[in-house]
Amino acid sequence: MNRLQTRKIHVGPLELGGNDTVWIQSMTNTTTKDILKTTKQIQALEAAGCQIVRVAVLDFEDARAIKTIKENITIPLVADIHFDHRLALEAMDAGVDKIRLNPGNIKKRAYVEEVVLKAKAKGIPIRIGVNSGSLPTPGTPTAKQMIEAAASHVSILESLGFYDICLSLKATDMRLMIEANRLAAKTFPYPLHLGVTEAGTAFSGAIKSAMGIGTLLLEGIGNTIRVSLTDNPVLEIRAAKEILKNAGLRDDIPNLISCPTCGRLQYDMIEIAKKIETYLLSVNKHINVAIMGCAVNGPGEARHADIGVAGGKGEALIFKKGKVIKKIDESLVYETLVKMIDDF
Amino acid sequence: MNRLQTRKIHVGPLELGGNDTVWIQSMTNTTTKDILKTTKQIQALEAAGCQIVRVAVLDFEDARAIKTIKENITIPLVADIHFDHRLALEAMDAGVDKIRLNPGNIKKRAYVEEVVLKAKAKGIPIRIGVNSGSLPTPGTPTAKQMIEAAASHVSILESLGFYDICLSLKATDMRLMIEANRLAAKTFPYPLHLGVTEAGTAFSGAIKSAMGIGTLLLEGIGNTIRVSLTDNPVLEIRAAKEILKNAGLRDDIPNLISCPTCGRLQYDMIEIAKKIETYLLSVNKHINVAIMGCAVNGPGEARHADIGVAGGKGEALIFKKGKVIKKIDESLVYETLVKMIDDF
Repeated sequence: MNRLQTRKIHVGPLELGGNDTVWIQSMTNTTTKDILKTTKQIQALEAAGCQIVRVAVLDFEDARAIKTIKENITIPLVADIHFDHRLALEAMDAGVDKIRLNPGNIKKRAYVEEVVLKAKAKGIPIRIGVNSGSLPTPGTPTAKQMIEAAASHVSILESLGFYDICLSLKATDMRLMIEANRLAAKTFPYPLHLGVTEAGTAFSGAIKSAMGIGTLLLEGIGNTIRVSLTDNPVLEIRAAKEILKNAGLRDDIPNLISCPTCGRLQYDMIEIAKKIETYLLSVNKHINVAIMGCAVNGPGEARHADIGVAGGKGEALIFKKGKVIKKIDESLVYETLVKMIDDF
Repeated sequence: MNRLQTRKIHVGPLELGGNDTVWIQSMTNTTTKDILKTTKQIQALEAAGCQIVRVAVLDFEDARAIKTIKENITIPLVADIHFDHRLALEAMDAGVDKIRLNPGNIKKRAYVEEVVLKAKAKGIPIRIGVNSGSLPTPGTPTAKQMIEAAASHVSILESLGFYDICLSLKATDMRLMIEANRLAAKTFPYPLHLGVTEAGTAFSGAIKSAMGIGTLLLEGIGNTIRVSLTDNPVLEIRAAKEILKNAGLRDDIPNLISCPTCGRLQYDMIEIAKKIETYLLSVNKHINVAIMGCAVNGPGEARHADIGVAGGKGEALIFKKGKVIKKIDESLVYETLVKMIDDF
């Protein structure tokens, strides 16, 4: 066990917290009541490797749609609910696996009690989500304020004897997010959901998220992650898988090693690297594949790779663990590598 | 001073180490002797924000090309040299600002002495670059082995009274790279150049680099960084700027905040976010710009943003620090934001 110890909760069949597994999650950006579109997007997310998915529940129609959506997907579904406890009740009746709801934002304690009673009866956990952008306190948000906001929501659930809690402390400022989660890991026994909120577009948002989420994961903090990008949510899953793989938390994701190219380059390496990377998205095994620019340094520098190619002019060297095994025509590089990846 | 203390060296006019500045560098992927192409690429890198640039010097023609290249660029130039000390001598005569060379790989001590004498006379520093892929020791590389390799190169220079040293310990395994650099920061007094080597293509390579370099920067380790991507090196600069900004090490780089979109979205937000992000690449000031999907949560959640837009159906709200200042037609969003960014 290399993660910080937390309580264990259940999200559908998944154990969240209390172990070394870090689940990948995302959120749909469709209107939930558009069942066909939402289901299709969740299926695409599943295919990409998403393990928990969240949908926004803005009204009763959204809540009721969960029933049909659940019939056509295989991963646990989370309902994102604000203010109206009746939507939480409806979503639970529709078979949702987890609720994201801040009890402090529900008007009456009696309403919170209703939600908690039903969640308990059905074994449904609740995520409390604190966002630096919506703290009750004015001015520049601090980690301490975020922890206080989380604690006030947590105490409501605990006072009702409810402990199947997951917590998130998100901020757009990555360093604030790191600080808040370090503090949360010390303060609360509950599993943590990590994310940098409103991180930006695919490239810069992935960088921001990798720094924030990655730093915490490497410290043993975090039990589920959501990379939040302004783009197709499938890219969130790709980013999340990269982060977990590099943190040593997943060993079923291929790793691509490729050099930054230099003046020695004599073949269309960037294109091949991109094509192989795309192919590897559908491969679920631990394999290091190296795409190297030149025969001079390639096989040696990538000698730890399971499979590799080093290009030349019109031809390329194929190597395994640093040993050259054959020379092939440049036009055959892609198909040769794909076959070797499949056979590995 | 929030960075770990190191010796200070000079790379052209830049002070490297011994202060809070972390310089961004990249490397050309052109043939250096192709002066026109190399100069053009360096100029593009400069325009993107590159502060130190490295070129590969494989032969005398490459070394001599440095003179003309230097005349047409403004940032310090580093020559990457392997094995042949005469190329280092030639590059220094051509006016190079720094040499990357591992003295342990030069055949005779007399040759190293020649290089060191000239470097001393000209005030040119030397970077020792240890790469996990080319260690003299067999088997899976360890951080300790990397430190030992660095120490053996360092001791050669120190024995010749040369201390204008910069060190890099790069690995494709990000966790190994982190461990080696933590150890290096404890072991050596010299400034550190950080990078994850052969990190991969733009998206996954940026993620890997952000985790490795970012984790170290947040610990106060690192004085110059190079993000290594299999793509146009200009993307390396974009990634490096994102990393430094998020680590709090640059306050002249704009920050884009944008939500991951949801079912509430009624305008073409992803496109606008991408266009504004591209525009911000040429802006050199500290400004937080928020592109938010909806009027419900947008202005509030992004109330810390200096300027923001929250889209609606056919129209959009423009806000400053969370206060809505006007409602405009959707078609005017881009030009309105650009004007506000310019005026800020």
